[in-house]
Amino acid sequence: MELGTAIERAAVEDLYFAYAAAIDDDLERWPDFFLPDAVYRVIARENYDRGFPIATILAEGHGMMRDRVTAILQTMVYLPRTVRHAITNVRILASEGPRARVTANFAVYESYPADASRLLVVGRYVDAVERDGGALRFAEKTCIYDGNLVLGSLIYPL
Amino acid sequence: MELGTAIERAAVEDLYFAYAAAIDDDLERWPDFFLPDAVYRVIARENYDRGFPIATILAEGHGMMRDRVTAILQTMVYLPRTVRHAITNVRILASEGPRARVTANFAVYESYPADASRLLVVGRYVDAVERDGGALRFAEKTCIYDGNLVLGSLIYPL
Amino acid sequence: MELGTAIERAAVEDLYFAYAAAIDDDLERWPDFFLPDAVYRVIARENYDRGFPIATILAEGHGMMRDRVTAILQTMVYLPRTVRHAITNVRILASEGPRARVTANFAVYESYPADASRLLVVGRYVDAVERDGGALRFAEKTCIYDGNLVLGSLIYPL
Repeated sequence: MELGTAIERAAVEDLYFAYAAAIDDDLERWPDFFLPDAVYRVIARENYDRGFPIATILAEGHGMMRDRVTAILQTMVYLPRTVRHAITNVRILASEGPRARVTANFAVYESYPADASRLLVVGRYVDAVERDGGALRFAEKTCIYDGNLVLGSLIYPL
Repeated sequence: MELGTAIERAAVEDLYFAYAAAIDDDLERWPDFFLPDAVYRVIARENYDRGFPIATILAEGHGMMRDRVTAILQTMVYLPRTVRHAITNVRILASEGPRARVTANFAVYESYPADASRLLVVGRYVDAVERDGGALRFAEKTCIYDGNLVLGSLIYPL
Repeated sequence: MELGTAIERAAVEDLYFAYAAAIDDDLERWPDFFLPDAVYRVIARENYDRGFPIATILAEGHGMMRDRVTAILQTMVYLPRTVRHAITNVRILASEGPRARVTANFAVYESYPADASRLLVVGRYVDAVERDGGALRFAEKTCIYDGNLVLGSLIYPL
């Protein structure tokens, strides 16, 4: 049986939804969704569209990612904020061998226990996904956010 | 041909999207998406994460669900509010025989005819889905909302 | 092998997500997602639900759609707004031969470079999709928006 579009799509969606669940509920697992030497970037849409590669956040490899997680978890002690990632519009733009080019949209909401939830940021992922043994992982992840991102809110990964 | 992940996933997504459409457009059909003795709970994320099983709303079985629908439809006569459920991140965590453990994210918007739409609440479902004859239904549905939920808004099911 | 639900669903989702990407990032391609004589309508939920076919926007065929694109692109010169479409709850209600009846939900966000993103409108598509050679296209697209839509914002297609 040929490996059809539907099956690949489901596997890719599983990766994105598990990735979102890790950030939202189990942040220490966030680096596990990347290959050891993966590049993670957060960049403003304005810069991305103009070809200015000025990233707001850049993490290269598991070490930098784990440092980031540690910093966030320490901050969370006195900041009981929670986040929620809604991931939509998952598209496989190209797929060849063990690697695929994938885009998706994200909307991230933040909430405090005594307050209503509010939209924090929306944007688009432009990613490279690779099959690594049995699992799919990100070889490259670029989070392109629309509008202006309040810097204090940037502490969580997108 | 083996019953693959993609097919199950599509059936589960169909259930969630039909469920959302019923609440948004045809509320009387809401109980039909549950098994007759299903348990429906709405609970704050803060309580859920701490293991406090204090539900904001609890409905056990079709009778309690139908009572709830009747109360909402009576209120709607003088409150022309509409709601819209965006369901994302549908994940089958475990599937064995006729039963699956499923999570998904929700964002609910409310609208009044003369006003812009606004975000009401975001959160996560943690559900048990069962095959009941030809159809999938909820055996258990827990709606975990982030942040604080204005009680007046809680009238619609999540 | 029978053409299963999962495969059709994936093709339909691909159409919607490519459609959204065109509006968000490459507006000139928007008409390409329609059959040459397709009908595109934007209508308030209140009117739709009451059976009043008063469309806020009506475009019949590629010519009217291209005129609309030209008008938007001219306006964008002095209005650096961007939009982002999150499409969820894609449902194939009926499928027969080369034509399917499809609904989906949309949430559209707008952003300005120096400001946070904000929710613009939510609603539901009620569409007819047709297989046209190798590709799926819209034969009919009705965008039903909840609440009130600020007219100045209506310039982009939904």
